[in-house]
Amino acid sequence: MSNDYVHGYHPQENARLLDQAGTLADLLHADTAYPPGSEVLEAGCGNGAQTVTLTRRSPLAHFTAVDISADAIAEAQQRTRGAGLTNVQFQQADLFALPFAPGSFDHIFVCFVLEHLAHPEEALALLSGLLKPGGTLTVIEGDHGSTYFYPDSDVARQAIQCLVALQRTAGGNALIGRQIYPLLLQTGLDQVHVSPRLVYVDASRPDLVDGFIRKTFTAMIAGVRTSAIAAGLSTPETFDAGIRDLYRTAEADGVFCYTFFKGVGVKR
Amino acid sequence: MSNDYVHGYHPQENARLLDQAGTLADLLHADTAYPPGSEVLEAGCGNGAQTVTLTRRSPLAHFTAVDISADAIAEAQQRTRGAGLTNVQFQQADLFALPFAPGSFDHIFVCFVLEHLAHPEEALALLSGLLKPGGTLTVIEGDHGSTYFYPDSDVARQAIQCLVALQRTAGGNALIGRQIYPLLLQTGLDQVHVSPRLVYVDASRPDLVDGFIRKTFTAMIAGVRTSAIAAGLSTPETFDAGIRDLYRTAEADGVFCYTFFKGVGVKR
Repeated sequence: MSNDYVHGYHPQENARLLDQAGTLADLLHADTAYPPGSEVLEAGCGNGAQTVTLTRRSPLAHFTAVDISADAIAEAQQRTRGAGLTNVQFQQADLFALPFAPGSFDHIFVCFVLEHLAHPEEALALLSGLLKPGGTLTVIEGDHGSTYFYPDSDVARQAIQCLVALQRTAGGNALIGRQIYPLLLQTGLDQVHVSPRLVYVDASRPDLVDGFIRKTFTAMIAGVRTSAIAAGLSTPETFDAGIRDLYRTAEADGVFCYTFFKGVGVKR
Repeated sequence: MSNDYVHGYHPQENARLLDQAGTLADLLHADTAYPPGSEVLEAGCGNGAQTVTLTRRSPLAHFTAVDISADAIAEAQQRTRGAGLTNVQFQQADLFALPFAPGSFDHIFVCFVLEHLAHPEEALALLSGLLKPGGTLTVIEGDHGSTYFYPDSDVARQAIQCLVALQRTAGGNALIGRQIYPLLLQTGLDQVHVSPRLVYVDASRPDLVDGFIRKTFTAMIAGVRTSAIAAGLSTPETFDAGIRDLYRTAEADGVFCYTFFKGVGVKR
């Protein structure tokens, strides 16, 4: 697993991830709860934005959360401790060289990780090997190609495409959400079930207007401005016009749609 | 996260609705039922495809279904009679010159109609005038820009764009779904509430693979082949390749997403 994480690890990005989890926690996690006593691996926990929700929702399960970044682990540790959560231990490790024996876990959870990998199918195969028979593998990913809005805007769509292109150049896939079903099938899991989680935002949902359109999605796209211009994917004028048009969708007559995908499969 | 968000529209509601929906009709209509004795107008009933579901779900309401096409009306009449439905009367009429007095109806229902109009806001204003205070106006529309799939395909997206362009040339708007919220606001309705209905299809939902990917969506796109080529929007080779790639998404590892939007507002 490369350390070439397209969103970076800087503090503003961490704030975005945290905002995202705070706003979308129910949407993404409400149907995930692990039984008392189960051993659960969170693979690629990052700064712990999901870990807090995950471990809080299954207080009697025991979590092991791993990430390749020691800094991210330190922050995740601080965050879960700050939230009073004690059912998780952290470990720095490479997703492709995890120090666990086959069949070590009852369940595995992977959120916003596969999108950054050149070979997600290899990661899933390795993770599946760590599961006990009958255990579940849960995957959550976004899909930037699921984004559309009113008023529509060519330059806004171009700005989003800059992130898609940069992520592809970095070996990732910003359109991976729609691919979770075939990826889990290919991993050889049983009972594969994928459900979309559409975030629909209009002015009747002011929390999401601010929390999702402005602080999550548009902030994420704005975050690649320098890289996109340096890579020749856009000009300052066009990119900034695109960001303005994304913010425009947060006004009183605007509408914004984005879909996350959650998939679960069972180890044979 | 506010209670408004949790108990108001919940994005998971969509996954649940679709999981529980035996058919697309359930997904679109399950939450529409009119009280006994209410007078309901279906504006633009076409050949009665929605009328059957609508009238069956509100057996003690009385429906008036209008369409500009006498042939469509005849077909709709045959269809509802064939289904044993007697709580609807049909009338040929122009949506922009409806022969009803102001305040004639308790509720109005409009499905897959606005997308074909050059001035949907005028139609909505006229319809709103036919409502009694406290009555509801319900609108359902698709949005072809909400379509994405796996495997992704440039030529498939181009084929869909042919329909979007042809509909625009004809004065319509194939991307109108995302615009329902501002349209209902602009109509001056109260309590405007819009909910997306995402149709997610993978091989675990074989009925939808056949019924939606193949027989509904791809058939609809394939239907504009001659017009698209005549208009110079595509070539036979490119268009046919796009249709092949749309059918490809119906295979065992394919995924297909499309979103309908349903909006309801209350007359002041």
